[in-house]
Amino acid sequence: MQIAIIGSGNIGGGLARAWRRAGHGVTFGARDPNEAELATLCTEIGAKAKSIADSVTGAEVVVLAMPFGALDSVLAATGDLAGIIVIDATNAVTRGTSGMTLEYGHTTSSGEQVQARIPRARVVRSFNAQGAENLANPTYGDVVASNFYCGDDAEAKHAVALLITDVGFEPIDAGPLASARLLEPLMLLWITCSRTVGTRDLGFKLLRR
Amino acid sequence: MQIAIIGSGNIGGGLARAWRRAGHGVTFGARDPNEAELATLCTEIGAKAKSIADSVTGAEVVVLAMPFGALDSVLAATGDLAGIIVIDATNAVTRGTSGMTLEYGHTTSSGEQVQARIPRARVVRSFNAQGAENLANPTYGDVVASNFYCGDDAEAKHAVALLITDVGFEPIDAGPLASARLLEPLMLLWITCSRTVGTRDLGFKLLRR
Repeated sequence: MQIAIIGSGNIGGGLARAWRRAGHGVTFGARDPNEAELATLCTEIGAKAKSIADSVTGAEVVVLAMPFGALDSVLAATGDLAGIIVIDATNAVTRGTSGMTLEYGHTTSSGEQVQARIPRARVVRSFNAQGAENLANPTYGDVVASNFYCGDDAEAKHAVALLITDVGFEPIDAGPLASARLLEPLMLLWITCSRTVGTRDLGFKLLRR
Repeated sequence: MQIAIIGSGNIGGGLARAWRRAGHGVTFGARDPNEAELATLCTEIGAKAKSIADSVTGAEVVVLAMPFGALDSVLAATGDLAGIIVIDATNAVTRGTSGMTLEYGHTTSSGEQVQARIPRARVVRSFNAQGAENLANPTYGDVVASNFYCGDDAEAKHAVALLITDVGFEPIDAGPLASARLLEPLMLLWITCSRTVGTRDLGFKLLRR
């Protein structure tokens, strides 16, 4: 598939590496597409870097992998992404004196907020609920880590499930987009456990018999 | 340990079975301690059944495994449980037209609400975030399911971690009691996945390298 990734940090960069390995085309959307580190990454993995507005032209899938605070400016550049599969991998967290808290409560989620702003896009929430380390290697011994996804468009969800598999995860359907209210706390649980356990080399698995 | 379990449904009954196997003493606290099904269970596993008020006398650990809606009447019977380790396994959920939602938002949790009502007790949140099926068998192939716990009293948490191990789970420290805000959505994620995957034979695992 042709995939535009907005943001080239740990999550965006990790997804790009994995999807290039799987044969997908990747174009980064960046505020500065000529930035040196991004250019090096693009050369290494065979990706392109363009302006945010240009990156989504021809893309079948757009991944939001920039800080959530940049959402307004990013969507101003991309337009409404009508009909496009949009994977929201952002996390709307607020850093306070007692650690991080979620910006949205149990009655909405950042995933739903994104969908409300681009109602004609097909938003799927995924890749938010673990550290970027898992993108490089989602297998723990014999066990493949799970990656949850949710959304309201069945076809978009199916496409995203294949992209999750391409990264090396087991995709787990977590239902409608409103389930983002459950996946966003899961991200904070991952962060909390990375502190109590003392490593970021952690993944979630949904065990089944 | 001497453990009082308030509620003898799937969770309370499952915990009792596991802890009796591990050699702990179990007394159920029940509105009707002479109820036939409960009496049968007590005979089978070697537990006692008493009134809620009497069940907590001499208990080192009290487990709240009744519906959250009964909290007020249960605490009226138990008193303030000063110094006692209280494992809160309830879930404050509201059933609405669009499914279940959490009664508390991201700024509090049912665990914290319980602690606020019995400030001298040592509340630990655990056993809430999966189906009771796991209490009978928390092992999936070679993989032992995780069970998260959180609380503000280090000694109480240590004791609960051992009780989690006695059930057969791997205990995962999820930090302070405020992390109940993360474990309560995890319970809804478990329920959601049990529907999308089509089985309640599901467990969570925190994978580590």
